Amino acid sequence: MTDQRLRNLRELILAEESMIITNLTNIRYLCGFTGSNATLVVSHDSAKLCTDSRYEIQANQETFGVDIAIDRDTFAFACSSITTDNVAIEAAHLSVAALAVVKNRATDRVRETTGLVEQLRVVKDETELGYIESACATSMTALKALLPTIRIGDTERDVAIRLERLLIDSGAEAVAFDSIVAFGSNSAIPHHQPTTRPLALTDLVKIDFGARVSGYHSDCTRTFSMGKPLGWQADIHALALQAQSTAREHLRVSVTLGEIDAIARAVVAEGGHGSAFTHGLGHGVGLAIHEEPFFKPGSADRIHNNTVITVEPGIYLAGQGGVRIEDTVVVTEHGYRNLTQFDYELLDLTT
Amino acid sequence: MTDQRLRNLRELILAEESMIITNLTNIRYLCGFTGSNATLVVSHDSAKLCTDSRYEIQANQETFGVDIAIDRDTFAFACSSITTDNVAIEAAHLSVAALAVVKNRATDRVRETTGLVEQLRVVKDETELGYIESACATSMTALKALLPTIRIGDTERDVAIRLERLLIDSGAEAVAFDSIVAFGSNSAIPHHQPTTRPLALTDLVKIDFGARVSGYHSDCTRTFSMGKPLGWQADIHALALQAQSTAREHLRVSVTLGEIDAIARAVVAEGGHGSAFTHGLGHGVGLAIHEEPFFKPGSADRIHNNTVITVEPGIYLAGQGGVRIEDTVVVTEHGYRNLTQFDYELLDLTT
Repeated sequence: MTDQRLRNLRELILAEESMIITNLTNIRYLCGFTGSNATLVVSHDSAKLCTDSRYEIQANQETFGVDIAIDRDTFAFACSSITTDNVAIEAAHLSVAALAVVKNRATDRVRETTGLVEQLRVVKDETELGYIESACATSMTALKALLPTIRIGDTERDVAIRLERLLIDSGAEAVAFDSIVAFGSNSAIPHHQPTTRPLALTDLVKIDFGARVSGYHSDCTRTFSMGKPLGWQADIHALALQAQSTAREHLRVSVTLGEIDAIARAVVAEGGHGSAFTHGLGHGVGLAIHEEPFFKPGSADRIHNNTVITVEPGIYLAGQGGVRIEDTVVVTEHGYRNLTQFDYELLDLTT
Repeated sequence: MTDQRLRNLRELILAEESMIITNLTNIRYLCGFTGSNATLVVSHDSAKLCTDSRYEIQANQETFGVDIAIDRDTFAFACSSITTDNVAIEAAHLSVAALAVVKNRATDRVRETTGLVEQLRVVKDETELGYIESACATSMTALKALLPTIRIGDTERDVAIRLERLLIDSGAEAVAFDSIVAFGSNSAIPHHQPTTRPLALTDLVKIDFGARVSGYHSDCTRTFSMGKPLGWQADIHALALQAQSTAREHLRVSVTLGEIDAIARAVVAEGGHGSAFTHGLGHGVGLAIHEEPFFKPGSADRIHNNTVITVEPGIYLAGQGGVRIEDTVVVTEHGYRNLTQFDYELLDLTT
């Protein structure tokens, strides 16, 4: 790795200013450190990573472009080592209590910034795209191996555990997040936690899962049926798929996030289920499972080249069941590449 | 569950004041909500949990003592619903950016509090102790099943994956944290991440792991040897064990955290390895894997009845190897109960 990312950040830092980075994902992005406690201070002529003694060896092994400092009271030590008069902070991540520590260093010249590193993270470089593609491919291998094992009587938790083991066996360093496996009426809960509910004939089976590879995530949802789909199941599945594929086909650099969200939402509304699509259309994916940018109503932000984002409309009928179809895609000059290619049909898992 | 915890918090809230709780672990503790996005607002005559539509059904199912409100812009909505003039915030958790949203509600009367809910969480009730004991028992079952499977040539990652599957098979809902499995010189890295390094004869084997049950954690470390221990391995293991057991035997209600830390540190120093014990002696365990209180040098805080805490001295010789021995214990009027009872010897895993 190079220190290109630190150089990109320095273009956003003022002269005679030090930026204090406290968000651990931003720290990993900028210098490679993966420990659980750190403060990074970046100015135009220095970059210092402060952590505690648990991580001394690791910090020296895995970072690039930074000096390492070790102190038990990591954050205060980092603040005390600043030599510029002006300080910039991450307003969305620094706590009110930590701001008081910053101000203790005899300066009130604190600039509150929002999303500087997050904006750098939106555009993925080739290394990052490689890790995300690998995470997505690993997920698809695991899902393919999982489907033939699903049986009537399996609990949601059985299936989630089996899926997570297949993800590791397929090469993931970890799961991207706690897998969502939801049967029958539970599929109407967008972020359902797997229970001991057993799978029965005519249940919908909603599976939302991902893999982590070198810190990067994948995110994919498919919905299946246990037995021949009932009419309403086939209807909402077809509608969700139409919304998802229509939104996908409009992806390209420079369209606004709000436009794409509106396209999917219009399809669901025209199908009579507008109020059952209760969440945003998608989110960026990278070192965090949810990161910038977000598809949401009205957003005027435009999509950049090499942005990785999910497209995931859902239709949820409380007490009855729900469908979500989600891909992780990378947007390019010419459209997009789908990194989670997998059957879109409402597959009957009994056949 | 009752709303006893909310009642305890209300004793710390001023008259005509609303407290905004943003730390998700504190929210779970107070009202049972386990989703990933929420703001809880508590005053003397109301308690309102705000979340987004993904969690509407779940919030209604799992919370107690609170009203539920759903809004996509959860935090701003929670702030706008406050009717008291005075507001208290969690200064260690609320971001600088979020504080600006609070202040937008036409009042500057913001009281910055630190650790109010965290202090309530220090003393565990019977329900919590039951979950922690169950998490600890599950861990011990898994470790016992793991040891006979460890073979020369296994990688750290192989052993970590096997351990984590045994934890789930033994009844954990999840692992408490990414397991630390460190062979040979890697055992000198306190928070080592498992690699593909294969296990060889004469390696130390350090395993730090835990289970999660109903949201509550366990935390345990043991160090083993692959083959008959070398002299220096036996020496640092015996010293770490002496420090650990001496500290444990001094545990009782009202002794200070600094005293216990000093007792362990003195043993290690007398054995000639003072500088090799580089971290604190232990930390509280509960809904978080690391929480109040902390054993650290000089702390004058006293231990309360029914506090759950780890005792975990370590001795790390860079490039050579390290030992840590850790139990999760509950401190009582009469001393303590060890929840992670397991052999303390430097077991030879080849026999």
